[in-house]
Amino acid sequence: MNPVPNFSKGQPFDGTTGVLPAIAQDAQTGRVLMMAWMDETAWQETLATGQAVYFSRSRGKLWRKGETSGHRQSVVEVRVDCDADTILLQVQQTGAACHEGFASCFFRVVDPNGTATIADERLVDPATVYGKK
Amino acid sequence: MNPVPNFSKGQPFDGTTGVLPAIAQDAQTGRVLMMAWMDETAWQETLATGQAVYFSRSRGKLWRKGETSGHRQSVVEVRVDCDADTILLQVQQTGAACHEGFASCFFRVVDPNGTATIADERLVDPATVYGKK
Repeated sequence: MNPVPNFSKGQPFDGTTGVLPAIAQDAQTGRVLMMAWMDETAWQETLATGQAVYFSRSRGKLWRKGETSGHRQSVVEVRVDCDADTILLQVQQTGAACHEGFASCFFRVVDPNGTATIADERLVDPATVYGKK
Repeated sequence: MNPVPNFSKGQPFDGTTGVLPAIAQDAQTGRVLMMAWMDETAWQETLATGQAVYFSRSRGKLWRKGETSGHRQSVVEVRVDCDADTILLQVQQTGAACHEGFASCFFRVVDPNGTATIADERLVDPATVYGKK
């Protein structure tokens, strides 16, 4: 069983440069939905289209959120932090933000002993969204 | 004037390894307050003490939030995301989360043209917290 959180997944990012963390928050509920990464192209396309576009580090290319699943994020507001190195999006989320079918990727609570427990209900079956593997 | 966001501040992190993004959200208001980084030591100390502890990449050491300013974060809930590589804290924030004296580090809204505007009120004068420089 993998440790939670898994610090072996920390930096470095296989040489990826020029990407910043982008947090998506549900504009209605305030729920933090996910955190992904944006390069400058993803940022510009997000501003221009009003749809959240990220940079997939694992695939090494733009990730237009919802392109496969239909679970798009319509951007309501964009903020940057004091150091201008983190992005916060307020979004209207269609369907489930998480590829595992949960409303938010943060569906697990960790207790003080470090034990993670699923605390949310799955909204959709990932197999119906992405196809069975 | 620096670009907003500033993608030149993206990866790599000067060789820092094993740190994960940690988002702090106000447990009462739902406001996203800041994003910082945790290494495993910071994570374990956060769980053990119930106070948010981060890893400062710029200083290369543990950052016990509020140690200088008194603006501590008492941890109400800890979550991890689906990939176990991002941490979400619900916190009770004392004072201002941002070192610039704002409640949240995300005090600037960016319009579709890329122009950033301060949208919040400053809560405290940083000079009174950190001393004049």
